[in-house]
Amino acid sequence: MSEFRLTTVEEFEAATARLLETGAKVGADSWQARVKNQTPHCKFGEEGICCRICTMGPCRITKKAPRGICGCDVHGIVGRNYLKFTAGGAATHSDHGREICHTLYEASADGCYKVKDPEKLIRIANEWGMETEGKDIYELAHEVALEGLMEYGKPFGTQRFLKRAPESQQKLWEENELAPHAIDREVSRSLHMAHMGCSSKPEALVKQSIRAGLSDGWGGSMMGTEFSDILFGTPKPIETEANLGVMVEENVNIVVHGHDPSLSEMICEVADSPEMIAYAKEQGAKGITISGVCCTSNEVAMRRGIPMAGNFLQQENVVLTGACEAIVVDVQCIFPALGPLSKCFHTKFITTSPIAQMPDSEFVRFDAHTALEKATQIVKMAIENFKNRKPELVHIPQMKQKATVGYSTEAIVKVLDGVTNSQVDETGTTKPLLQCITSGVLRGAVAMVGCNNPKVRPDLAHIELMKKLVANDIIIIASGCSAQAAAKAGLMDKRAKDICGDGLKRVCELADIPPVLHMGSCVDISRMLVLAATLAKDSGLRISQLPVVGCAPEWMSEKAVSIGNYVIGSGLDTYLGVDPYASGSSEMLEILTNGTREWCEAAFTVEKDIDKLGDLMIERIEEKRAALGI
Amino acid sequence: MSEFRLTTVEEFEAATARLLETGAKVGADSWQARVKNQTPHCKFGEEGICCRICTMGPCRITKKAPRGICGCDVHGIVGRNYLKFTAGGAATHSDHGREICHTLYEASADGCYKVKDPEKLIRIANEWGMETEGKDIYELAHEVALEGLMEYGKPFGTQRFLKRAPESQQKLWEENELAPHAIDREVSRSLHMAHMGCSSKPEALVKQSIRAGLSDGWGGSMMGTEFSDILFGTPKPIETEANLGVMVEENVNIVVHGHDPSLSEMICEVADSPEMIAYAKEQGAKGITISGVCCTSNEVAMRRGIPMAGNFLQQENVVLTGACEAIVVDVQCIFPALGPLSKCFHTKFITTSPIAQMPDSEFVRFDAHTALEKATQIVKMAIENFKNRKPELVHIPQMKQKATVGYSTEAIVKVLDGVTNSQVDETGTTKPLLQCITSGVLRGAVAMVGCNNPKVRPDLAHIELMKKLVANDIIIIASGCSAQAAAKAGLMDKRAKDICGDGLKRVCELADIPPVLHMGSCVDISRMLVLAATLAKDSGLRISQLPVVGCAPEWMSEKAVSIGNYVIGSGLDTYLGVDPYASGSSEMLEILTNGTREWCEAAFTVEKDIDKLGDLMIERIEEKRAALGI
Repeated sequence: MSEFRLTTVEEFEAATARLLETGAKVGADSWQARVKNQTPHCKFGEEGICCRICTMGPCRITKKAPRGICGCDVHGIVGRNYLKFTAGGAATHSDHGREICHTLYEASADGCYKVKDPEKLIRIANEWGMETEGKDIYELAHEVALEGLMEYGKPFGTQRFLKRAPESQQKLWEENELAPHAIDREVSRSLHMAHMGCSSKPEALVKQSIRAGLSDGWGGSMMGTEFSDILFGTPKPIETEANLGVMVEENVNIVVHGHDPSLSEMICEVADSPEMIAYAKEQGAKGITISGVCCTSNEVAMRRGIPMAGNFLQQENVVLTGACEAIVVDVQCIFPALGPLSKCFHTKFITTSPIAQMPDSEFVRFDAHTALEKATQIVKMAIENFKNRKPELVHIPQMKQKATVGYSTEAIVKVLDGVTNSQVDETGTTKPLLQCITSGVLRGAVAMVGCNNPKVRPDLAHIELMKKLVANDIIIIASGCSAQAAAKAGLMDKRAKDICGDGLKRVCELADIPPVLHMGSCVDISRMLVLAATLAKDSGLRISQLPVVGCAPEWMSEKAVSIGNYVIGSGLDTYLGVDPYASGSSEMLEILTNGTREWCEAAFTVEKDIDKLGDLMIERIEEKRAALGI
Repeated sequence: MSEFRLTTVEEFEAATARLLETGAKVGADSWQARVKNQTPHCKFGEEGICCRICTMGPCRITKKAPRGICGCDVHGIVGRNYLKFTAGGAATHSDHGREICHTLYEASADGCYKVKDPEKLIRIANEWGMETEGKDIYELAHEVALEGLMEYGKPFGTQRFLKRAPESQQKLWEENELAPHAIDREVSRSLHMAHMGCSSKPEALVKQSIRAGLSDGWGGSMMGTEFSDILFGTPKPIETEANLGVMVEENVNIVVHGHDPSLSEMICEVADSPEMIAYAKEQGAKGITISGVCCTSNEVAMRRGIPMAGNFLQQENVVLTGACEAIVVDVQCIFPALGPLSKCFHTKFITTSPIAQMPDSEFVRFDAHTALEKATQIVKMAIENFKNRKPELVHIPQMKQKATVGYSTEAIVKVLDGVTNSQVDETGTTKPLLQCITSGVLRGAVAMVGCNNPKVRPDLAHIELMKKLVANDIIIIASGCSAQAAAKAGLMDKRAKDICGDGLKRVCELADIPPVLHMGSCVDISRMLVLAATLAKDSGLRISQLPVVGCAPEWMSEKAVSIGNYVIGSGLDTYLGVDPYASGSSEMLEILTNGTREWCEAAFTVEKDIDKLGDLMIERIEEKRAALGI
């Protein structure tokens, strides 16, 4: 076994630079070039002080023009933009969750999609007060799916999963009118409030942002996660690898990219079949390698150990290897750039969802009924494309790290059971983790999440913050592109314990875990909510009292702002490395960074100096410890 | 009876100028001043080529930077912005409709809200296949309301009211996947498609815009209209007056502004009570005058004959009269400027809806349960404020016109029955109108709708186009701020027949109607859809074959774009005088002005030269006539 060391961001960048040379040869565009073209950005837009909500404008706030034509001031404009941004994210996450509900509704014993975790299905049915006794598992699946779908549009009542939160948080939501009604209704309500001539009071706009966010986190995203587990299995610790080196030159390389596991699971299933492997050999390859990009990658890594080729800003790199036969995408975070880029190589850029239709792609429409057939068609397209490779363009950077992934909340509890003396201690709780925190062996935990963003040197913030935090005995739970940054660096290799503080190192050894726990995709941040709720319940504390914070140092998408809103809405302070287009309004800044505490006991901190961002998180965790007297 | 003549826009402007002098005295801001401050507008925004969908940007398309950082080209950026704009409008209209559904759900024999049109309730229940026999009317109301609420969130199926369209149009919707599912789902789906890394294909984005629009027009707005009729009565022709001269100096003036009749109906009810009138007298006034601004005004004018103080760009004027004791608002198109402006006068600016919360207002939260109590509180606040008037600031321009309003589809059919020989002809159809059109007595019809926008000289486009069209024997149906412009000018006075062509004049005389028929508020454009559908069915033609077009020459809001999408989606060509932030993309322009014909047999025309816009409509109507050989 070779000596372990982390891969550095400099090494990532050198690999990218080499790939960009190939790109230059074939005249490919790149995000790096586009960033140069688009810099500097419009200051009005960056500060959130430009309003295009009606066509009397656009209006821009300046000293000379302190109000828009309708009379809206800068605080209203920034607030509306912020609410619209949030609504975009809540709708997007939740629509993903809806697709999963529909897939569960279509599941059948002899169909493309089956129930892989009946125990979770029954657990949720019971939680929702449904009759489960003596019921066929698929009958139950359809009933639960239908109830789930109703969470999007029911005319009355609030989200069912809110009851998973500690009562103290539920009470805050009720008192402050933050408890979300039907998910889609909250989205529509947000757009209504942000319409011309509706709300311009920042408090009202931020409250609705939190409500819309909570409908995502405890609604659409949580159903997306839970029902994905029912369909595809609840993740357990599993070994995999990360970074471009997971692509195999002599194999047909299919890269899955996007968010919805319904597609990627089926692609993996088909590519694994003896027929397809034989077909790949027939076409001159040694086999088939599936690897992933973005959250789809997290989904199949967590459940199947499928290797992770990279995160958001690495999506062009997989094509630039010249060894990618097909990049198969569903929804969200897919660069439209992949269209023209794939045309510079032999790569097939295959779009599959009516939600994400892009120029210069081949559209193979995917749905639950024809999933197997369409997945087979796609895998065949990739195999048959192997012969079209241009060998002179092929270069796969030989860079990868081992990673143990798959830490669902259930898996974490199981790991904790492993360190429990079952003769004496209660099992099935988070109490061993709480004991580590109370005793100070661990100082706390940080949920690291979110995207890459060229405004931050890619991956650096994720990795440097994690290194700093684990050295300070703060355990990390990670998801999305943050998790992939960690995996690429080696922080999900169990041997990374050696860069931790003594306390965390001991915990890693005892529990046999890496210091950064991979909790899944971006909808899986709902797992983190459940974990935080469980910690609160097991400790008798409020969520806001736990020495736990959230952090998205490189975020870029509307989804991330929705997440931020539900994380603070759930009582967890959240640290951002990129400003949410809100800096133009002092009132909005005050509310977002302080005022929300009154409603949900948490707020945002925005700090572009990443080192300082880390210090602030550690400081906050220590403050929370001090307040608890631990 | 004094001689009749139209009021000119120059006269409107002179009255406004006089009011602005008062404003200047008290240091009031005005939209006229803000327009100056905000001009010129940002070109990137105006052309729709600025993208703020993620925080990698904002990105702006230039020759040097033809793609955003994600690689999205100008067509994708304009398309996404267009879809988001539409979704904002569809959500807003539909959320208004939802409120009406909830009000209907709360209706009871002894409550604040009653069923005033049980016949319509039963008709809709039958249309929806519900059991009505022997059912208590309130039981039925609640069942219909619940079914209506489910149209927002049902997991399966398309909008119920789509079946009102001619089969030919329904077939187009099915074939082109334009038939909308649950209303809120279409909103969420729109935001999902426009999320970073989802759709960038203009065709897909415009198709979804049409689908979202149709969910508004044949969904949320149509329910808003129909259920308002059930609750408050289906409009019938009624006399009223329009323009600021309707305010009465010696009375307590309460101005209702916004969109939802639930509030304004209750205010009218309360203000009409002997107790309140006595209280007003006690406080030194002679009585109470309610007048309206914007669509709330259209609602109460159509059903109660409440006079119309003005349309969108006249909202500040009502305060500037110095004689407005309270401006009471619910949702949409309410200038945040009313907050600071009302502070310059004695006027109370009373907000009532959690959807529209504004600084510098008094918030009296209104809901179905406490409607009477809150309306009483508001009317009392206004009465008690009478004594605070500053007499030196009072000036009400003595300018108003008579108007006959209240032409619901049902009312129009009834008018047509009046010119039918009931011995020979079928009654209850649109056939007499079709005969006028076929014979050429009328050349066709134009639906004039939409807002004011300072980019167009306010009201001028509405009025000049109407004058031109009626002179050409084209009958006008109007709604929203367009209808109010017509009423202010005198075009809804029956004597306006004299400015019409001979054919239309004869029709006006025979049917005893004005040449411009007031069909209601902006959600009531759904009445126009029903009328167009009825004309198509009664004639056996497709909607697109009718010599009928839509026109919004001064539109400004997201709702207007949603309307535009459902009007073209329903087969009616639509003429816009303001560009929908889409001029930056040749592909988007081609689709919007031509490509959509393939899916729904209609498209947009954008023409800022208003005279030319009129010529283009006449030309199109004559083309359609020629194609029919009439």
